[in-house]
Amino acid sequence: MKKPTLTLLAAIVAISGMATNPAEGIPAITNIPEAAYPCVDAQSKATFKIYAPEAKDMKIDICGRKYPMNRAADGSWSVTTDPLVEGFHYYFVIVDGVAVNDPASETFYGCGRQASGIEIPEKAEEAAYYTFNKDIPHGQVRECPYFSESEQAQRRCFVYTPAEYETRHDKKYPVLYLQHGMGEDERGWHEQGMMANILDNQIAAGKCVPMIVVMDYGNCGYIHGTRPGETRDEFGASFTPIMLNELIPFIEQTFRVKTDRDNRAMAGLSWGGHETFQITLNNLDKFSHIGSFSGALFFLADGIDKACGGVFNDADAFNNRVHTLFLGMGSEENFGSDKISEALKRAGINHTYYISPGTHHEWLTWRRCLNQFLPLIFTSK
Amino acid sequence: MKKPTLTLLAAIVAISGMATNPAEGIPAITNIPEAAYPCVDAQSKATFKIYAPEAKDMKIDICGRKYPMNRAADGSWSVTTDPLVEGFHYYFVIVDGVAVNDPASETFYGCGRQASGIEIPEKAEEAAYYTFNKDIPHGQVRECPYFSESEQAQRRCFVYTPAEYETRHDKKYPVLYLQHGMGEDERGWHEQGMMANILDNQIAAGKCVPMIVVMDYGNCGYIHGTRPGETRDEFGASFTPIMLNELIPFIEQTFRVKTDRDNRAMAGLSWGGHETFQITLNNLDKFSHIGSFSGALFFLADGIDKACGGVFNDADAFNNRVHTLFLGMGSEENFGSDKISEALKRAGINHTYYISPGTHHEWLTWRRCLNQFLPLIFTSK
Repeated sequence: MKKPTLTLLAAIVAISGMATNPAEGIPAITNIPEAAYPCVDAQSKATFKIYAPEAKDMKIDICGRKYPMNRAADGSWSVTTDPLVEGFHYYFVIVDGVAVNDPASETFYGCGRQASGIEIPEKAEEAAYYTFNKDIPHGQVRECPYFSESEQAQRRCFVYTPAEYETRHDKKYPVLYLQHGMGEDERGWHEQGMMANILDNQIAAGKCVPMIVVMDYGNCGYIHGTRPGETRDEFGASFTPIMLNELIPFIEQTFRVKTDRDNRAMAGLSWGGHETFQITLNNLDKFSHIGSFSGALFFLADGIDKACGGVFNDADAFNNRVHTLFLGMGSEENFGSDKISEALKRAGINHTYYISPGTHHEWLTWRRCLNQFLPLIFTSK
Repeated sequence: MKKPTLTLLAAIVAISGMATNPAEGIPAITNIPEAAYPCVDAQSKATFKIYAPEAKDMKIDICGRKYPMNRAADGSWSVTTDPLVEGFHYYFVIVDGVAVNDPASETFYGCGRQASGIEIPEKAEEAAYYTFNKDIPHGQVRECPYFSESEQAQRRCFVYTPAEYETRHDKKYPVLYLQHGMGEDERGWHEQGMMANILDNQIAAGKCVPMIVVMDYGNCGYIHGTRPGETRDEFGASFTPIMLNELIPFIEQTFRVKTDRDNRAMAGLSWGGHETFQITLNNLDKFSHIGSFSGALFFLADGIDKACGGVFNDADAFNNRVHTLFLGMGSEENFGSDKISEALKRAGINHTYYISPGTHHEWLTWRRCLNQFLPLIFTSK
């Protein structure tokens, strides 16, 4: 019996053979196992290196800029970026004009496709709230399939359950529905957002109450791409009935959860913030905690008084009914939450407004927003 | 307030704009949402289409063959393959010599990196055992982080729990440890192998007993690629102590499971079959059900009598101790399980040998092997 020579085994990339130059920093945690590049140095500059002897032109497209790569005699191409903002960035390699993934990177669903991603590390103390802590109990992120009658198709959601959920069989938990942004999907909050670490750390420290977090795809037709797409402005409109009539009942049948409005929250980032406002403000009998993280709240630009049946026009009624209204945004982006917060303040609407210092329309802003939002919700008041 | 123009939003690929030619078939279920290509016709031929106006040369690398793509005047490249074997195949797009992912495909960790994948559908009745069935209860696949003392690093495993696990709080379950192949990781059995559907379908039909299935990375250093790699022959050697001393205790502390050898099974595909034989046959006090799916059992090539302390030399003792020994392989591959089965037969070792008709060293072989293996294990005998 001879060992068969396998195409697949032969195809394993010899990335581990590339030595790391210590001056270039350490491999990004978003790399696949044993990939030495990309690596990040102490100034947050990233060095990319890809073997592509036949390519004519190679670029790295990251943080809104395209960096031309330089070809070495051995056929490898490399480039070191300027210092990058800390946090998670999608990026692409452009091979002779075609934007593709870096073979050395894990892939992350963003930009409407699988994209490469790189984590530029913060200082350990700043990153602690979203970093795995070996000394505390850990929850689980469960992939749950369900059948959508309205879509006549399989869907799936991811459900975070806190560590104690495994053993406290008589306890029921409040639920946060947490939405991704446009071009992302139900995987984003866990994989890019590190939501499980954030929840684990806050629960262990007593900063937020133990809760269930549900993450679903904020549009129709997840599993099979055969339904016609909606326009950008319509994106996610079909999610409202799916969420209210199918997802919430599925969660409440499957998990030990509290089902009253005091114990149901919704939050989302970017377009997920838009979806959150549209769904919660039009269904205040079902929700009492609301979060918008860099929300795409363009429908409020012409004035908050016309929004959602005039919900903001009676401040006392609103403030009595809504226990948490949170708006957050990065200081380096221009998504308009500052102006909405000012309008809400003028109208007497209680809310929390948070600015993430130094961050753009990216995941570090949203990790920080989640970290600010969690302690506010499901507290008895 | 103006709507900001976002690099990320602008980067969303206009895949949905491509019309599907009905003669080319229907989009693969492995595509990202709304991607019309690749599509698969009734003869199992796949058509790939990628917009790359600046590329000089494009190929599709699939099933051991490279198909040159043809450039159209609009800058898109396309090719239709020969009929492909049914089941799941990894593939790459080769852009001017660089093997990258198809932007329209989901990505799957295989070949030591994130790879594109395409599902060539079988007839519905043949695919039923691994197809989502809306009319039965569904289990969950839970991502569970844990800290490895020996690695001083975070690891994760995926754990399938059957639907009834949510409500039968007094019941304990047997456990199957299920390993991926070389170049794959702990995600493979769920994402490529469709193991949750196979389990759900068998449990609902009473074909196998409800069980927990644990999938972990069969090597050291999952999260961070900074540890030096092992040679191919050593791959996974460090997993034995991790599994025995860390993973199994973690599972038994976290889940309601039976902890005796009668209720502990291990199986794996390709190199995971090698790991399974090495771990179980050297630790028969801990395991009584053993499965090798296209196992890379090269250490048995020189004779089974020398293996694992001579475990096969006393057939009566072995047959009394090991409740299930299963070997499976695809008819179109040459991984030597046939010769090992013959040697086991000559030695009087009870075992089941299964040939998957028409399939290669690929996931359809391993789905079928799992489907054959599950009814054999944890039956009281």
